Amino acid sequence: MDSRFDVRNDRDLTMLVDFYELTMGNSYLEEGVGDQIVYFDMYFRRVPDGGGYCIMAGVDQLIEYLENLRFTEDDINYLRSTNTFSERFLEYLATFSFSCDVWAIPEGYPVFPNEPLVTVRGPAIQAQLLETMILVTINHQTLIATKANRICRVAGNRPVMEFGSRRAQGYDGAIYGARAAVIGGCSATANTLAGMMFDIPVSGTMAHSWVQLFDSELEAFRAWARAYPDQCLVLIDTYNVLKSGLPNAIQVFKELREQGHEPLGIRIDSGDITYLTRKVRRALDEAGFSKAIIVISNSLDEHIIKDVLAEGAQINSFGVGERLITARSEPVFGGVYKLVAVEKDGKIIPRIKISENEEKITNPGFKKIYRIYDKDADKAIADLICDESETIDESQPLTLFDPVFTWKKKRLKRYKAELLRKQIFKAGRLCYQSPSVRDIRQFAMEQVQRQWAEVLRFENPHHYFVDLSWKVWNTKHDLLNNYSEEFSGK
Amino acid sequence: MDSRFDVRNDRDLTMLVDFYELTMGNSYLEEGVGDQIVYFDMYFRRVPDGGGYCIMAGVDQLIEYLENLRFTEDDINYLRSTNTFSERFLEYLATFSFSCDVWAIPEGYPVFPNEPLVTVRGPAIQAQLLETMILVTINHQTLIATKANRICRVAGNRPVMEFGSRRAQGYDGAIYGARAAVIGGCSATANTLAGMMFDIPVSGTMAHSWVQLFDSELEAFRAWARAYPDQCLVLIDTYNVLKSGLPNAIQVFKELREQGHEPLGIRIDSGDITYLTRKVRRALDEAGFSKAIIVISNSLDEHIIKDVLAEGAQINSFGVGERLITARSEPVFGGVYKLVAVEKDGKIIPRIKISENEEKITNPGFKKIYRIYDKDADKAIADLICDESETIDESQPLTLFDPVFTWKKKRLKRYKAELLRKQIFKAGRLCYQSPSVRDIRQFAMEQVQRQWAEVLRFENPHHYFVDLSWKVWNTKHDLLNNYSEEFSGK
Repeated sequence: MDSRFDVRNDRDLTMLVDFYELTMGNSYLEEGVGDQIVYFDMYFRRVPDGGGYCIMAGVDQLIEYLENLRFTEDDINYLRSTNTFSERFLEYLATFSFSCDVWAIPEGYPVFPNEPLVTVRGPAIQAQLLETMILVTINHQTLIATKANRICRVAGNRPVMEFGSRRAQGYDGAIYGARAAVIGGCSATANTLAGMMFDIPVSGTMAHSWVQLFDSELEAFRAWARAYPDQCLVLIDTYNVLKSGLPNAIQVFKELREQGHEPLGIRIDSGDITYLTRKVRRALDEAGFSKAIIVISNSLDEHIIKDVLAEGAQINSFGVGERLITARSEPVFGGVYKLVAVEKDGKIIPRIKISENEEKITNPGFKKIYRIYDKDADKAIADLICDESETIDESQPLTLFDPVFTWKKKRLKRYKAELLRKQIFKAGRLCYQSPSVRDIRQFAMEQVQRQWAEVLRFENPHHYFVDLSWKVWNTKHDLLNNYSEEFSGK
Repeated sequence: MDSRFDVRNDRDLTMLVDFYELTMGNSYLEEGVGDQIVYFDMYFRRVPDGGGYCIMAGVDQLIEYLENLRFTEDDINYLRSTNTFSERFLEYLATFSFSCDVWAIPEGYPVFPNEPLVTVRGPAIQAQLLETMILVTINHQTLIATKANRICRVAGNRPVMEFGSRRAQGYDGAIYGARAAVIGGCSATANTLAGMMFDIPVSGTMAHSWVQLFDSELEAFRAWARAYPDQCLVLIDTYNVLKSGLPNAIQVFKELREQGHEPLGIRIDSGDITYLTRKVRRALDEAGFSKAIIVISNSLDEHIIKDVLAEGAQINSFGVGERLITARSEPVFGGVYKLVAVEKDGKIIPRIKISENEEKITNPGFKKIYRIYDKDADKAIADLICDESETIDESQPLTLFDPVFTWKKKRLKRYKAELLRKQIFKAGRLCYQSPSVRDIRQFAMEQVQRQWAEVLRFENPHHYFVDLSWKVWNTKHDLLNNYSEEFSGK
């Protein structure tokens, strides 16, 4: 869809379900509730790395999965071999036709804890079946887009290239990780397949092995300059950066210039970044190559980048690998998928999951999300979770309140209220067109700029408000009171 | 290969290469060294989580990749569109035929830092091209198999089920992560697709949503018992474990027994594990259900399992999710792929990569690995990296020495020397048959038992020796001395 090359992933991932989704489906059918309409919300509870927001990603892959959702004869035979399912259920799966409604926050938006990123409405068997794939898809890409956004933010206007494929957790970790990294702000990836699939820039120069293959480093650099006279960027740390790599690079750069070409620059993959880049910058400048760039690529993350830039390291571009592609500092994105309502006789009945841990209590009901902006500054003030039946009238004042300390209120007059989610499937049919990855990246940058600086702060950011309407709040507290009545006597 | 169902991954991952492997390939060809025979070693430098060993995994997927290695017309068109490659190189890729020799340590073996897990011998363009896929494949699965082995070790004889798909880093993170988890010791996975692909046991019961769908928890449990009268395992923490879930479970268990069925047990997914499982165990026992099992599944890892078992928690089985499937405590496995030799006129010429960080200096040359066992105890003493031309004669004494403190020596008389690696491709043709995942799991258990208890120790294990033969040691130090001569004067 977003590439000229026919490499969309049409892998059949229907069977990537937790087995209990199938055992439950089997029993739903036996109990006659398989076609009961239910509502599930996918949401997360905490921003990784102490950040102020996440970057939504993965919707396009969710769409691919839902479009390819069908059980093959092999799938059915396999399930039969587990001796767990009724023939009636297997027949149901074999003739199954996807009919759910699905809503999602478009990719690139900053998103916050406890708001439903995805909502599914549909027959219980189907809606249950999507749990694993919705979670793994959105959890993974949102995790990496969020991490990339943190890294790119501290790199400022210096391009960040995604270099992590070799240390990714599996092939999709590399492929969709690269996609998410670009959504989060990376300028390019070293992953050629991702470049081809998503029409995103690819980059790369040479490895140490190139230098080792030749009898000398100088000979290796000269060969490289012959091959790429106008894109010559050499790796100078195979033997010794200052005593060997740097003088050899400068010699080859001079030879290039004599032939009418300008060198691109150098890359360093080991050693003390601040010390080496300052030495290298000075030497390149003194030799007349002040436009030659310095690329750094040694186990970087946002903290190291922040530190070396503060120390005065001379860097034009970063290649970031394992710590980005695995979100190493916090590699789990804890999205969950919870039942929030059932329909009976056409009426929506909210459901709740209780927990002694308050933050694990769900927000019941079928909901929509408004993002509320200051009308003059065009900056986001809060997200407001409303019942689907509610509508905000911008001509009227709006009162927000804290869902825990409800006496803390804020009354808004000049505001805009924008619906955050789009319907992506209607009765099982796709009704949404994903933008290209480049467009999502641009959109993400724009939407991040619509957050106040306090929310974007790198450490200890301002806590962004995700509020409930009175209707949603009342529904939740009525359900909670019912349960506490029921259990308090036991 | 290891399943009755035709679900081998025949995805074309040829383009999952770092772009620089292609830019280097292009220049190799231009420089006339594309067909020069080179040797690359894949190895790692450190065991994650402070453990004593890793569990080798991923060889079967490496084989799948190498068997599917070919560039399609679309691939070539895409590469042409980057304006980076000569038509001659694109023609080379289009007509490319894999011709490398590949050696690997079979899956399931305990493996150690600095020994070559995989070695590739072949034309420079080809051998270079495999870098990313060899690394991502072996890095990922070895990481997860190693983590699973740590977790299963502390769980003792209690089965550990892999439950992490929803929090995996992408689909392959879930699929191959489940495979690796079973190799490391897990008894089953919740990932249905992995169960089908690798013929490994799948398991799963119910989610909170099952309980929420019904008007009461008791009704939900009764419905479950109707569906699975002989496999009835209920999740008792949707509302309140002790006040609601447990009494409802016991009531349904009694009803089941009246109908002639025995319940399977209960699962708890939140709360204080030690406190709750002791209360639940006692109540189940008192109600006459001493055979009903208790399954725990709340953000577990090896440390929590160790602690709650020490505290006397009553647990029969563990479901382990996000912290296993992402190796959360250390999610990067740092395997590298380094050029170690080139052939000139049929002679193997060792190459080295220098670093100021001693542990990053490569072991040069084309090598083989012996694992040396105590003949009487059948326990491993050390791995010995030899030149390919060397052979150990078990009838002669063997002297091992420390590669840094070379005066530290050990003389062995009663030992066995087993070659650790197998050739898996010969001149581009597969010459190895992967065992089934179940057999690899069994093999891993046996091989772990061939390590001394000191190496298996959970914390601060004994450092296992990976030694060099004198021939390899001398080659390395001759190269190092040459370089230090060259740079010491600068």
